[in-house]
Amino acid sequence: MTYTAPLRDIAFVLHDVLAVQDSAIPGYAELDRDTTAAILAEAGRIASDVLAPLNPVGDREGCRLENGVVRTPAGFREAFALMRDGGWPALDCDPEYGGQGLPYVFSTAVGETHAAANIAFIMYQALTHGAYTAIHAHGSPGQKATYLPNLVSCRWTGTMNLTEPHCGTDLGLLRTKAEPQDDGSFRITGQKIFISAGDHDLAENIVHLVLARIAGAPSGTRGISLFIVPKVLPNPDGSLGARNAVAAGKVEEKMGIHGNATCVMNYDGATGWLIGEENRGLAAMFTMMNEARIGVALQGLSQAEAAYQRAAAYARERQQGRAMPAPAFPGQPADPLIVHPDVRRLLLDQKAFVEGARAFLYWAASLVDAHGRGGDAEALALVSLLTPVVKGFLTDKGFEATVAAQQVFGGHGYIEETGISQLVRDARIAQIYEGANGVQALDLVGRKLGADGGKPIMAFFALVRSFIRENEADAALKADFLDPLKAASKDLQAAAEFFLQNLKDPNAALAGSTDFLHLFGHVALGYMWARMARAANTDDAFHAAKRATGRYYMARLLPATALHLARITSGAEPVMSLPAEAF
Amino acid sequence: MTYTAPLRDIAFVLHDVLAVQDSAIPGYAELDRDTTAAILAEAGRIASDVLAPLNPVGDREGCRLENGVVRTPAGFREAFALMRDGGWPALDCDPEYGGQGLPYVFSTAVGETHAAANIAFIMYQALTHGAYTAIHAHGSPGQKATYLPNLVSCRWTGTMNLTEPHCGTDLGLLRTKAEPQDDGSFRITGQKIFISAGDHDLAENIVHLVLARIAGAPSGTRGISLFIVPKVLPNPDGSLGARNAVAAGKVEEKMGIHGNATCVMNYDGATGWLIGEENRGLAAMFTMMNEARIGVALQGLSQAEAAYQRAAAYARERQQGRAMPAPAFPGQPADPLIVHPDVRRLLLDQKAFVEGARAFLYWAASLVDAHGRGGDAEALALVSLLTPVVKGFLTDKGFEATVAAQQVFGGHGYIEETGISQLVRDARIAQIYEGANGVQALDLVGRKLGADGGKPIMAFFALVRSFIRENEADAALKADFLDPLKAASKDLQAAAEFFLQNLKDPNAALAGSTDFLHLFGHVALGYMWARMARAANTDDAFHAAKRATGRYYMARLLPATALHLARITSGAEPVMSLPAEAF
Repeated sequence: MTYTAPLRDIAFVLHDVLAVQDSAIPGYAELDRDTTAAILAEAGRIASDVLAPLNPVGDREGCRLENGVVRTPAGFREAFALMRDGGWPALDCDPEYGGQGLPYVFSTAVGETHAAANIAFIMYQALTHGAYTAIHAHGSPGQKATYLPNLVSCRWTGTMNLTEPHCGTDLGLLRTKAEPQDDGSFRITGQKIFISAGDHDLAENIVHLVLARIAGAPSGTRGISLFIVPKVLPNPDGSLGARNAVAAGKVEEKMGIHGNATCVMNYDGATGWLIGEENRGLAAMFTMMNEARIGVALQGLSQAEAAYQRAAAYARERQQGRAMPAPAFPGQPADPLIVHPDVRRLLLDQKAFVEGARAFLYWAASLVDAHGRGGDAEALALVSLLTPVVKGFLTDKGFEATVAAQQVFGGHGYIEETGISQLVRDARIAQIYEGANGVQALDLVGRKLGADGGKPIMAFFALVRSFIRENEADAALKADFLDPLKAASKDLQAAAEFFLQNLKDPNAALAGSTDFLHLFGHVALGYMWARMARAANTDDAFHAAKRATGRYYMARLLPATALHLARITSGAEPVMSLPAEAF
Repeated sequence: MTYTAPLRDIAFVLHDVLAVQDSAIPGYAELDRDTTAAILAEAGRIASDVLAPLNPVGDREGCRLENGVVRTPAGFREAFALMRDGGWPALDCDPEYGGQGLPYVFSTAVGETHAAANIAFIMYQALTHGAYTAIHAHGSPGQKATYLPNLVSCRWTGTMNLTEPHCGTDLGLLRTKAEPQDDGSFRITGQKIFISAGDHDLAENIVHLVLARIAGAPSGTRGISLFIVPKVLPNPDGSLGARNAVAAGKVEEKMGIHGNATCVMNYDGATGWLIGEENRGLAAMFTMMNEARIGVALQGLSQAEAAYQRAAAYARERQQGRAMPAPAFPGQPADPLIVHPDVRRLLLDQKAFVEGARAFLYWAASLVDAHGRGGDAEALALVSLLTPVVKGFLTDKGFEATVAAQQVFGGHGYIEETGISQLVRDARIAQIYEGANGVQALDLVGRKLGADGGKPIMAFFALVRSFIRENEADAALKADFLDPLKAASKDLQAAAEFFLQNLKDPNAALAGSTDFLHLFGHVALGYMWARMARAANTDDAFHAAKRATGRYYMARLLPATALHLARITSGAEPVMSLPAEAF
């Protein structure tokens, strides 16, 4: 697979749109143009030269369970060591434990390039980062000392164990048991499924974070605790001791991300230690949810970018048919595909999405920093509102973008050799894991929208309104960007008001929840495009292309808000009236 | 895989909506309720008991090229023999050559059940039927006598050889050569790719229909001729003679339909015979295009139906979460998924599409009969207009429906074991082959819309208008169905008028071509739902469910017409302004 990190696009968002170098968020001043450019160029080089060539290898070979040990595809070990030695997985980790302490927004930009090149590979790191975050937030000083340096260095990797065969979204049903032992540890027994990076041969130990129910705890979600269950038990001196009673029982065969080992994990009285408070395991998991979900949103964006690059290159090279009304290259046997309006439509759907999504994603990441580094509580409230939108919208539209890219290739897109099918298959998972997108919509409408009396969404509307007001004097910006943004934003307000007026019937809101998420996503990208158009204010070809791509978004994609509003205001009846047995 | 033929839904469309038994089309009177029910029940039994269990086998095993011969998956030979012996592939073939002479609309209904159960398997038959149709329409009496009985009986199968490595859509570029021989035959030399059912072990001979250029013929599409090139040369007495110089060079690894052998076919001076007129090969191919494309539309519908059935069953069984505002089954640990509005939305998106699509597809098939059996030239004009719509819309939305079905399964949908991933991967091809959907849109807007001064689309509008007028007295039908249909139909008319007003700029129409196809598809399904709602006029639960599903279509899906119109009227500028190098 070929992939080239879109360095100029990334720098444009970081420096010209978000102006990270001028931000008051602690640590952002270090993100000057030269520093970010140097690091991103190196990140992009690794993506192109190391990770992208391994992507089809991982897809073809997959992971194999052999004699109780999972083997990753050829080359993954070496690449993992290279990434670890370069400190890439620890860019934004705490320097106290060996991290580089860079802002999350910047590790997000670096992560985009790596995830675009090889999502299956990057998941081993991503889960490790998740375990790091959980232990950093909730671990005891001893737990931090034992685990964090090893997770930061990726000498050990991490996993998240939530799902069981009979419970995914509804974690209140979970059955894995934790029995307290005299030494303060717990014996963990149960089966977990769909455990990404559950076992592998990339690291000397794996730190499983496991949700389980302590004997005697309340049923439902209020009786769930979080445990650290290492694959190999560390000795008091930090060296590795005995093998714990946890093992992969199966590696799943999946539609995509074959290079990542998705395991059934069996806990047979494994030794674990409580992390955080008893019965507060779910809350502990939720503290890292924004970051985890933004991380999955990044997968949607990155697979779309990778697919778009391939499709655009193919459309410029492949000669087929003729431009209308006259040939573009009369001396050639045919014109390149890119002369055809419908091929351009397919490409622009991808390009306008990807560039808008990048800005939205980085903005959300900068809000995480504003809270995490700057203590800004309003930023936390806003990013908590935006997180289900960025996760749901970027993974839904990211998948659609890969499908559109595949369509550009015609029959060649359906052949595995071309590599586009893998991007489609890999992108599909992001709509499902870390909370299926329907759950994101439920979270958005059922929880985030009404949080704190609706203040976070009011804050969002205020940002959009003040941006429009500040820039209305620019006639071109107004006509092409601000007016469509205003109309779309009104649709979003009307939808929110419809939910408010129908509070008595929760199903009226829930029936429109996914439409609301998509409506919100469009307004967010419309807002981002307006900001990008203002920043792209020179005659430079790059800036001109930004404005043209943005005009496409505003004219052709943003009008979807009216359709989503129409669906929302049709209410619960069309969705709820059919009896279950009539399906 | 499990699949149950939706016999009642099929009968409803055939008898209550299209009223085939009362039609004046020759042969339709034989399609009384009892006859169709008996045959369809048997077809459905084979689909459930024979073809569906082979579907995952075909996906897992794929086809292998071994010593120059392609091996199909285990069980395919036996199932093919069973289908052949039952006469299923020849339901609508000419009785003169051993067919059963039933109407095309009925073989379409039977075909839906078989394609839903195993699309990769059914493609071996479908290509054979295509070869039968071409030879039946264009073959000499001798060619008909030699080939048709063997194709009808499926002792021999057929293929269509159009694509070459450097040309797919743009067939004018094709290079395969045909050199005339003294005995009236031709020596065919060249490489064809993406040849479905190109080689296999299911039949004793394979009849390749090959587009090639006779030495000295004009360049471009006016120099292409059609040839019959059998794998094994038939002796004058009809027995099989020498092996011809054609062989599969490779079996492609594809995203889906693994059970069908997609081959690179090498012609090394193979013996072939001209079929039809010299240099009129493309026209000969196009005579069977409506049927071939309706056949692919059927794949979109059938994969959606198969996926929907699985998703609905899962949503009724899987317990996860609680209904709002109160539990539906307080005695159970959780409620079934189907209580959740957003799960219902996913299911209703599929159900409302599938049922509307079935009516649209069967209607189109009945128009083929009205022309083919009844000599109705207006029916031919109308179905020629509708064919790109039914192909493009049913395969695009059919794919989306399988993705929605997969989403209902959450993480379980991403695991190959569940079987839903296969339906997604298999459905994807239908958007690509037999003219990628962008080519369908081009055909619709560039050719069919303006055909005969626009008479065909006027005929479509007249049908919709008169249906509305005839039924306006029914207040419920008017409010729920006729008014939304009228609004959607106006959007379609406005789009057509926009194209007329911008005739000077062909790119203004082409930039909106796919949107126009989808707009048209929605209006067609809206029209079908209005007709179904009128036919579903009792208090019977089946009829009540039809009306409720139809109301969902009209309230939640049909409003997409306004979005498509908005995109269309944004014109060429957003699509054409970005220079090729800026992509």
